[in-house]
Amino acid sequence: MSQQNKNEAITGRDADFAQWYTDVCRKAELMDYSSVKGFIDYLPYGYAIWEEIQSYLNKRFKENGAENVYLPMVIPQSLFDRERAHVEGFAPECLVATIGGGAKLADPLIIRPTSEVLFSDMYKRLVSSYRDLPKRYNQWCSVVRWEKTTRPFLRGSEFLWQEGHCLFETQKEAEKNALDMLNVYDELGRDLLAIPFVKGVKTDHEKFAGAVNTYAIEALMHDGKALQAGTSHYLGQGFAEAFGIHFLGRDNKLDTPHQTSWGVSTRLLGAIIMVHGDDNGLVLPPSVAPIQVVIVPIRQEAEGILDECQKISASLAKLGLRVKIDDSDHTPGWKFAEWEMKGVPLRIEFGPRDFAGGTVMLSKRVSGEKITMKIDDLEKKIPALLHEIHEQMYQKALDFLNSHVTVVHTVEELKAVLDKGGYAKMMWCGDEACETKVKELTNGGTARCLPFDQTPVGDTCPICGKKATKVVYFAKAY
Amino acid sequence: MSQQNKNEAITGRDADFAQWYTDVCRKAELMDYSSVKGFIDYLPYGYAIWEEIQSYLNKRFKENGAENVYLPMVIPQSLFDRERAHVEGFAPECLVATIGGGAKLADPLIIRPTSEVLFSDMYKRLVSSYRDLPKRYNQWCSVVRWEKTTRPFLRGSEFLWQEGHCLFETQKEAEKNALDMLNVYDELGRDLLAIPFVKGVKTDHEKFAGAVNTYAIEALMHDGKALQAGTSHYLGQGFAEAFGIHFLGRDNKLDTPHQTSWGVSTRLLGAIIMVHGDDNGLVLPPSVAPIQVVIVPIRQEAEGILDECQKISASLAKLGLRVKIDDSDHTPGWKFAEWEMKGVPLRIEFGPRDFAGGTVMLSKRVSGEKITMKIDDLEKKIPALLHEIHEQMYQKALDFLNSHVTVVHTVEELKAVLDKGGYAKMMWCGDEACETKVKELTNGGTARCLPFDQTPVGDTCPICGKKATKVVYFAKAY
Repeated sequence: MSQQNKNEAITGRDADFAQWYTDVCRKAELMDYSSVKGFIDYLPYGYAIWEEIQSYLNKRFKENGAENVYLPMVIPQSLFDRERAHVEGFAPECLVATIGGGAKLADPLIIRPTSEVLFSDMYKRLVSSYRDLPKRYNQWCSVVRWEKTTRPFLRGSEFLWQEGHCLFETQKEAEKNALDMLNVYDELGRDLLAIPFVKGVKTDHEKFAGAVNTYAIEALMHDGKALQAGTSHYLGQGFAEAFGIHFLGRDNKLDTPHQTSWGVSTRLLGAIIMVHGDDNGLVLPPSVAPIQVVIVPIRQEAEGILDECQKISASLAKLGLRVKIDDSDHTPGWKFAEWEMKGVPLRIEFGPRDFAGGTVMLSKRVSGEKITMKIDDLEKKIPALLHEIHEQMYQKALDFLNSHVTVVHTVEELKAVLDKGGYAKMMWCGDEACETKVKELTNGGTARCLPFDQTPVGDTCPICGKKATKVVYFAKAY
Repeated sequence: MSQQNKNEAITGRDADFAQWYTDVCRKAELMDYSSVKGFIDYLPYGYAIWEEIQSYLNKRFKENGAENVYLPMVIPQSLFDRERAHVEGFAPECLVATIGGGAKLADPLIIRPTSEVLFSDMYKRLVSSYRDLPKRYNQWCSVVRWEKTTRPFLRGSEFLWQEGHCLFETQKEAEKNALDMLNVYDELGRDLLAIPFVKGVKTDHEKFAGAVNTYAIEALMHDGKALQAGTSHYLGQGFAEAFGIHFLGRDNKLDTPHQTSWGVSTRLLGAIIMVHGDDNGLVLPPSVAPIQVVIVPIRQEAEGILDECQKISASLAKLGLRVKIDDSDHTPGWKFAEWEMKGVPLRIEFGPRDFAGGTVMLSKRVSGEKITMKIDDLEKKIPALLHEIHEQMYQKALDFLNSHVTVVHTVEELKAVLDKGGYAKMMWCGDEACETKVKELTNGGTARCLPFDQTPVGDTCPICGKKATKVVYFAKAY
């Protein structure tokens, strides 16, 4: 995109949310469309957000005993075919290599869509005794899923993610691991992304191909659609059986381990954009913002202005903050719009009048609120202010989520809620036929999850009228 | 590998260097052979070394103005075919996907062997004015090159690397960037890997497919073979022309930018193993060691021993050191062998006698030297001791390198040096025919580089007898 049109206004959220989303992705320079159809380029500003997420998760994974590894990016067809449910789920989306070094491959290679198969195959070699358990490995990589319609970060032929794959002696440990990791993702939302999630278990229809249980975190976008933001699976013993992973147990008998896998992806960038963004562009939570504080000099040619900006910048950088001075030759107005588009949480304006008074003008991206602050107070107060901005963003998103959960008892209520946007919370008989019926009735609404809080909101399934004991969230989703 | 055979001895270096290398890779649990032929699994202990390298380089790249991005892992055949020399160099090694979502692809997709093509294609979209320059992007990813014979870390169908791709207004800036990044790699060797390199420029025959100049760092392995450990290319304007990247210059005329690319890979792990390792296994430089200090309790069941080990461990961890206590139920002798195999730079032995004396016994992996130290001194002295170990390892490797550079003036001398191992330093007429002749005469010796120090060591090319002004290093290489 050329310098000239970067600073133009974008489509309004309420005018055309899909167009607004694409505008933000491009004008904030998070990504670019690649010449490779269905694939995107992750540009520095977008990739840096992902790196902050990686850094947080690496720390949390390590606390949970996980270690990073790297496995091949291709899976031989013959190996892939071993776990039946898994194959059926993924085969239609596979990209397959058939030529290597100029010759036809006897066993075609599938570009990994996910790596349960390779981890299982590796664990078969590494595990023979209970002493070798647990195994808790994680991999950062990209995966390929051949998609017909794609949207930046939300659905694409290749995306970046992490995939944890663990093996345990007992079901209890494995189930605990699946839930522990879901909680890590939930805390990622709370601590880093300022995004509240609905947590629960997926219906059998919506669960991962090959899983016994799929747990998920679901976020609610500004347009009222849900976004599955992360999943954690208890895989049972299916993969272990299919790949022949067995171990000599404490009782000296041969046993089969219990497996989990869990992952989040660059979809989270889509969630950040659609939860926090506004008509002026991106709004980034301070913890993931590549630039947390931008300093815009006013009349930067005036004596001492840039020097003082440098001093302020250095003193904040020393605290570990990510600071940038925009001393380009654009007008202050242009710069304001530019850094608002890029969602920088806090702007410092500093001109001759501020210089004279020994103060700066602060502007909070999330609210537009302006604060005058003494230069001498900046070091002490800015970290707290960024924390306050995070809390403000989280609370705003939580209020939005809470105001978009509606208990429904009839098909009409269900349809109305899903038309308007947000979650319909209702009782469900548990029959997959009713789940499918909802999709037809609501033009695409799906069961997002059975929330962990199963306090009943009735006793009848609105679809079939039969007795219902399960609480479920339905919504339209990305 | 089962617990039982982990602690067995390995092949001696001088008995069978290739087997020794494989033994170390596997017994130190750096990698495992994958079921995917030609591909390996990077296990936690090996991958953690790579993460230390990444962390160092990310910091250095940032100082050099580079930003991380991520581009697609596949390149459409039609796009790949645009730069002639590049295609000719890489086509024979390509893995090609021909099926996506069950259907034949109209334009086959090459799994990236390197990404000059995609970066050039992206830069065409991002660059239109001198204001958009320079661009300095880096990517961490894996690349695939279809190899017939593979060896862990050294040559494999997939390896991990970083690839920097930059664009500049002028040749001067681009050439400077290529050399600056080579120096970063050289400093990586000195500061992190304790490996001295020979630095220079590649001959036309050995340079990168599509480059004007390829600069390289070359390391010398224990068996006297060289290993190309990193390269930095000045690409000229060839890719920019082929992909139509042009910019409006300061003079308001259309101009073509100058390009560079530079990369190091997990080959560096091979270099670490083969430069520093010995008959007891791996010897890791402290800066990349996943475990820098291992504490082995002696008579760990005795009262207070494990508690005191914990205290020591905590006090060292507080300094930022990576410490592990091995309180497994193996014997101390087994543990010594295990952590020697894994190359932990410093071992602390601590038993009842030490406890009584308020001391510990330290053992340096590089030399086997033992030191008694007061517990109270550990915090102060261990960081310095690790630094000393680094210096000792670097000096040892430098002495080895220096003692394996031999100036040769005749074919016989050249053959003798390359038979024995090490570098033959000689004058060269510059004719590619003589370079090819050396390969025949010496059973595979290649021109490693024209070193930056071109002080003549003669005036005649030993091969053709003609006048020669170029100094070149020949060696057998991995």
